[in-house]
Amino acid sequence: MTINAYFAAGAERWPEWRGPLERAFAAAGLDVALTPTPPQSPGKVDYIIFAPGGDIEDFRPFTGCKTVLNIWAGVENVVANPTLTQPLCRMVDPGLTEGMVEYVVAHALRHHLGIDAILGRQDGTWRHEAPPLAREQPVAMLGLGALGRACAEALARLNFPVMGWSSTPKDIPTIECHSGDDGLEEVLRRAQIVVTLLPHTPETENLIGAWQLSLLPRGAVLINPGRGALIDDAALISVLDDGRLAHATLDVFRTEPLPADHPFWSHPGVTVTPHIAAETRPETAAPVVAENIRRAEAGEPLLHVVDRSRGY
Amino acid sequence: MTINAYFAAGAERWPEWRGPLERAFAAAGLDVALTPTPPQSPGKVDYIIFAPGGDIEDFRPFTGCKTVLNIWAGVENVVANPTLTQPLCRMVDPGLTEGMVEYVVAHALRHHLGIDAILGRQDGTWRHEAPPLAREQPVAMLGLGALGRACAEALARLNFPVMGWSSTPKDIPTIECHSGDDGLEEVLRRAQIVVTLLPHTPETENLIGAWQLSLLPRGAVLINPGRGALIDDAALISVLDDGRLAHATLDVFRTEPLPADHPFWSHPGVTVTPHIAAETRPETAAPVVAENIRRAEAGEPLLHVVDRSRGY
Repeated sequence: MTINAYFAAGAERWPEWRGPLERAFAAAGLDVALTPTPPQSPGKVDYIIFAPGGDIEDFRPFTGCKTVLNIWAGVENVVANPTLTQPLCRMVDPGLTEGMVEYVVAHALRHHLGIDAILGRQDGTWRHEAPPLAREQPVAMLGLGALGRACAEALARLNFPVMGWSSTPKDIPTIECHSGDDGLEEVLRRAQIVVTLLPHTPETENLIGAWQLSLLPRGAVLINPGRGALIDDAALISVLDDGRLAHATLDVFRTEPLPADHPFWSHPGVTVTPHIAAETRPETAAPVVAENIRRAEAGEPLLHVVDRSRGY
Repeated sequence: MTINAYFAAGAERWPEWRGPLERAFAAAGLDVALTPTPPQSPGKVDYIIFAPGGDIEDFRPFTGCKTVLNIWAGVENVVANPTLTQPLCRMVDPGLTEGMVEYVVAHALRHHLGIDAILGRQDGTWRHEAPPLAREQPVAMLGLGALGRACAEALARLNFPVMGWSSTPKDIPTIECHSGDDGLEEVLRRAQIVVTLLPHTPETENLIGAWQLSLLPRGAVLINPGRGALIDDAALISVLDDGRLAHATLDVFRTEPLPADHPFWSHPGVTVTPHIAAETRPETAAPVVAENIRRAEAGEPLLHVVDRSRGY
């Protein structure tokens, strides 16, 4: 029997997703009728392929929907929607993970090796100063989910001593794992490079505030490819201004696009990137959507189901 | 019996090497009398710890010297010295290898993710463009010695498809290995990122000239942390000017320090770094010197002996 799937992730995304989804359904042996337009009979929709800011605010008409398949990693804009009673799956896109690892490793090495300073002084003066080694630069990875763990392991393979922190205890062979409030304090006190890769939940909102930033060794750097709300913006600017924090490279913001008059754009200690670290790529993500539909049809456990009580 | 070692690597290096060498000798159980001044009786010197530009031009007085231990990776300034008849060992410093890997990975990711452009346009305009993935960016690693191989493997672990090229055929599991003239042509035709990590020998002098550069796909980048003489400078500037090569990041030059009026400094398509990629670090290199003395005293094969016929 034909499976009805409604692509409710926004008309502007349809052109780049249609082909990859159709190919992924075919490869999985699924007979799927895929439509990007609101169906006449919402009750007949079997699966909703969803993105925040897309076409659905009210899930109640979709009485026959078995699962909502989010095509983004973050679910904070949908998880608290009271009309959503179906299972909700996050996207864990292998291409997104690769892109995140590349972003985090690139900017960690950029700060570690002082590349901004090198680019800024191509002035004919030969300044021979040996750079430090990664083995001398402790990294704190805040968040050890699929993305945080992949980044932590990639940095550890480059010899960075990596401390990981997560709300619940974890055990990862090459990572010194910490958890809880005491653990957060310890990793911040020792980190030269802090990476924030946590989900946005009530517990992580403003997790990095003035007190936490005050714990960092002078000259540390911060890389935030996670969520804008993890960090207290005013406190961040304050520690940049007083020199405790040498630099912040930020990919995510409380308001996106980041307004043109936001002080981050003009601050010499801030690099703004336009939410490019966690890019879902249709070619690698569509097979994950197809696999979850296959599982649901076969009665197998779904991948990446969101725990509503934890918010991710 | 006390071993006599003469530190002939330049008085300016003595302060930073003395402690690490003395600690490494003690750790290896070697009784070494180490001096930084030319000995009264050169014939009694057992080992010469050497760097080009140091204190020895004529090795003939050192009639009892068992081995010359170079503290640099490159030996082109000493290998052809006709007065040198003793075995010559190159330095393969684990700290140097780590630093080289960090340099090459950092600049490969910098070019791959367009970080220079990001830093140059912090102008309040939100330009959301997904960067490519490393898996889409072929790298050519020219040179598969200890340093080239370590860099190639690190890039492969970050998903770059890495083609390796060496003068003699090699076989490395995660690297697509090529050799010979045809192999060089093939890897250059496909590479988006070219890294030159070959020794400077008569065969590699100007290996990358106008014809080789013309093979590259338009928009490729070059990273040279190997030797300045590997590349024809004028041909390099020509392909940068015509846009075939998007950028060159150069750490080594025919004349160092690079003269202030050299066109590389002011060319917008060139990043000059002051010979910092291959930095020998006394703390990690001194144990290699000690190990070779221990081996020589025990009659065991030396590490990293230079093949005079090949020049490295």
